[in-house]
Formats: sequence, C-alpha cells, structure tokens
Amino acid sequence: MESDAAASGHVADRLLAAIDQLKAPVCVGIDPVLERLPQQLRCRAGTTTAAAAAAIGDFARSVLEVVAGRVPCVKFQSACFERYRAQGVEVLFELIEEAQARGLEVILDAKRGDIGLTAEHYAAGVFGAPAPPHWITVNSYLGPDAIEPFLAVHRGAFALVRTSNPGADAVQAERLRSGGTVAESVARMLAALGARCTGRRGYSALGAVVAATRPDEARMLRALMPQQLFLVPGLGPQGGTIEDVLPCFKPDGTGAVVTASRSVIFAFDSSERRWSDAVGRAASDLAEQVGRAVGLR
Amino acid sequence: MESDAAASGHVADRLLAAIDQLKAPVCVGIDPVLERLPQQLRCRAGTTTAAAAAAIGDFARSVLEVVAGRVPCVKFQSACFERYRAQGVEVLFELIEEAQARGLEVILDAKRGDIGLTAEHYAAGVFGAPAPPHWITVNSYLGPDAIEPFLAVHRGAFALVRTSNPGADAVQAERLRSGGTVAESVARMLAALGARCTGRRGYSALGAVVAATRPDEARMLRALMPQQLFLVPGLGPQGGTIEDVLPCFKPDGTGAVVTASRSVIFAFDSSERRWSDAVGRAASDLAEQVGRAVGLR
Repeated sequence: MESDAAASGHVADRLLAAIDQLKAPVCVGIDPVLERLPQQLRCRAGTTTAAAAAAIGDFARSVLEVVAGRVPCVKFQSACFERYRAQGVEVLFELIEEAQARGLEVILDAKRGDIGLTAEHYAAGVFGAPAPPHWITVNSYLGPDAIEPFLAVHRGAFALVRTSNPGADAVQAERLRSGGTVAESVARMLAALGARCTGRRGYSALGAVVAATRPDEARMLRALMPQQLFLVPGLGPQGGTIEDVLPCFKPDGTGAVVTASRSVIFAFDSSERRWSDAVGRAASDLAEQVGRAVGLR
Repeated sequence: MESDAAASGHVADRLLAAIDQLKAPVCVGIDPVLERLPQQLRCRAGTTTAAAAAAIGDFARSVLEVVAGRVPCVKFQSACFERYRAQGVEVLFELIEEAQARGLEVILDAKRGDIGLTAEHYAAGVFGAPAPPHWITVNSYLGPDAIEPFLAVHRGAFALVRTSNPGADAVQAERLRSGGTVAESVARMLAALGARCTGRRGYSALGAVVAATRPDEARMLRALMPQQLFLVPGLGPQGGTIEDVLPCFKPDGTGAVVTASRSVIFAFDSSERRWSDAVGRAASDLAEQVGRAVGLR
C-alpha cells in the first residue's frame, strides 16, 4: 500500500513522503538479542543456531506487524542476524521483504566499507536481493570511492560521520590543521559526493549518520550538509535527549530521522504475555515525542 | 598438521610460526568473482544464487588445495561470498573450516565496524562459528571501543590504517593540528590498544592494514606501531612493487604479511583446463619473491 509520493523512485523522496504521511520523522531499530526476547519465544529457541535465528525472526516479525502504520521506517541491525551466520542472513532478508510488504521504508544497518571493487560486491549482494532494502549504512574511513558503488544502483546510503560510542572521539573529534574536526571534514566530503544524486525535495540519496549526543556538533554538521538526511541514533539509552536531536533537523522540521532500538523493541517485561502491545505503545510514543518536538504534530 | 609453535594459542605467534616454516610472509586473498572463474566451472554455475555460490565454493576449494603448503595464510574477502547472501555465507564458513583443515592460517576480510554492543554481535557471529577464522579485519573510524570486542575472544584483528584506493586520502591523509595525518593518529591509537595483548614474540593480536602503495608512509607507520603485524595489500594490480612493501617489514624480516588476490587466484586463461597449476605457480612465485626480498630465502 504505497502512496503516490512514496512510490517515487528516489529514496530520499520516498522516505520524506513516508515521514509526512505519519507526521513522524522516526525509525525503529530492529536489533533483536536472544536474551531479551519475551519468555515464550525464548523458551522455543532451544540450543541450535537455526532455532535461535528462527526465534529472532519470529520476534522481529511481530515487531514489524505492530510498528507498521505507527512509524515510517525500520532499520535492521545486520550484526544481530549475522551472529547466526547463513541462517541469520536468510532470516534477515526475509524480514526486509516483509517490512516492505507492510509499507515500511527499510534501512540495513551494516556499516560496510571497502575499496571500490569490493564495495561493488557488497552493493550487489545487498541491493541485488529479491526485495532489497532502500538504504544501507556505510563507513566513511575509506573515502568517496568506497561509498559511490552504493549510490550507483539508485538506492541510498547513510555514511558514518559521528557515532555515539565513548571511544568515537579518538578518531572523529581529532582537529585538522585546515580547521575543524575529522567528522567535519568527512561531512564536507559527503556533501560534495551527494550533490549529484538529489531528489525532488532537495535531499540526496547519500545521507549521514550523526549521533544525538553532541548538539553543538550536530548544529555544525547540519550547516555543512544541507542536502543530507541525518540518521540520528543515540536518543534514550545512549544518553541523548529530545533537545539533543533537534539541531539535526532544519527549521521546517525536515532533514533527520531519529532512530531508537532497545527502548522500543524491548519495552516490556520478559514475562509479559501481551508484550507486543508495549512495543506498539513505545513506537507510538517515539513518533509522538519527536513529531511534536519538530512541529509536525 | 600443526607444528608445535603453530599450535600456540596466540594468533600472532601462530601466524609468525607458519610464516617461518614456509619462509614466506605472504597471504593469498580468496576474492572469487563468477565472471573470472575457469570456463568449466562457470558453465556449471547456471543462473540461481545457490548455483553461483556453489561454483564460487568449488573454485575456492581448488585454490585452497593448491596453495596449502606454498603459503602460510589465506584471506577470504567476505563481500565476494555475501554477494550470494545466506548461500554465500554458508559456503564462506565451510571454506574457512576447510582452509584450517589444510593447515592454513585464516583471515576473514570483512572490515566490520560498529559501536560496542553491536561489535560484540559481529565478534560472536564470526568467532562463534564451529571453526572460526584466526583473524578478522575491522574498521578504525569508530575508535577503540569498536575494536576491543574482537580482541576479547583471544583471536586477532587487523584494523584499517591506510588503504590502497585512490579516494583514501580524503580521510586518511588529512593533516592534524597535533601533527601527522589521520592515519598516523589511528596508528598511535592501535599501538596503545594492542599493547595489552602481545604474544611471546612481541607482536600483538591487534594488527594493522597498511597498503603497499606509499613506502614513505609505511616507514613512518612501521615506526609508530612496533608491535603490530601489518597486513599489506596493494602489490601488483593495485600499483605496489616489491620495493614498496619492504618498509612494512622490520630489518629482521618479520612484521608484515603481503597479501595478493587477483594476481594469484586468476593467474590463468579462463579456457585453461589445468588452471589450478597456474594458481599454484603464482602462489609459489609470490612466496619466493617476498621471501627473498625480506631475506628469509
């Protein structure tokens, strides 16, 4: 059930249309971990890799069912599925297809990064799937030619600029002789690289990952990357507040998608039988909180 | 068939022992691409993802058979297998097991990089396999806490410092206000992080990827990271010469592993029936060339 705008070919236009429709610039991160599944699913998981991957899949399917219509977008954490190797990867791509069938925009959070030819293989693997995700996350350390292959196939990529982990400063906050930080230099590189693939609304198919834990920096990065959609983790458990995410948006309320994972998908006590009701409420709360803060509601 | 020294628990000691035994500080990169397989294998590949993954697997198995005993180490390019999603990942882990059964040290070139908890999932997936690789490559952009989980399991990680692609300068060669480049700053970070997990021969379980295309820089990085084994791509097709790789070694001939992929595994005409003979010769030539240049032969 796609709206006309959402059916547009450009990934940024699609995502913006989906956000407009629900008045919710948010994304639910699907980072399932066996130990935190509802008791009834965990008991079924048994001890084999296949059983664990299946339990993770059942859980994620229920999450997709309940968040669809409440949020425009989901982000799958590839590591949580790759943990179960081939069986996990199979479940992952099934879920990506199911998310799309439910009308959700889909980001694959895989943070891939390799030199040109190899990046082409990664892009071919992910975007060559029968129902590929709309976006993938990529690492910026190898420079523009490691990112380009992900844009060549008319899908989108969110490239890492600023991450929320405590150790990130060791590289990203280093100050350059030419002025500014490494993260700001990466931001300039992405702005230049993304300029050639903008959609009708002026945003590029090349977006940026900008964590919500440093509002001053977010303001600076917002100015450096006017055409980049920001994918913004860090709200909640990672220490960011709703005020911290606001500088990632433009004054008109566009420009960013706030993503929350654990605070939504694990918003229940593990013994709770109707656990998915709690997930649905947490997704609606996230949409309401961010939608209101940026003036869409 | 492991020698006593190679059976040592520490991955750096194992790798050094395996290099000593063959007098060859080299690695063959297994980066199989369907289009370049020998004609007889390509014809069997058919059109399904499963058939393509199987053909890639058959090719790689033949390569392992012929390079074992000539080189101490192989490196699997994860992207070439992930390209075929679940089926490719299944083949990849089968091959990793087979390589070990043939006495080869194994590097998984996956360049993973994510924040702490997620990095733990990647580490659990790769190193939790029934026959896990000895080493994995990781991205440095997220800082030390994104690398530590890969070291916590007593295996090894090669972290990206300097890559061989043309666009790498855009990030890695930026000059810092505190002196030196981003790559040199990453090198200092890795030297500090790796100091706590050195083996009997003084090398750390945390190594570094340093491309062979910039010898002056390699010299500087060698000085900054005395305890890091260097994984050195870039010889041959990527533009590096044997002279370019020498500064990655210490005067005693230890300290680096030169890795070559396409120039070895595709060292045949696609119609050649005894193609694996050519691969074996190319592996021996690589071992001879590098072993001689660093004084091991």
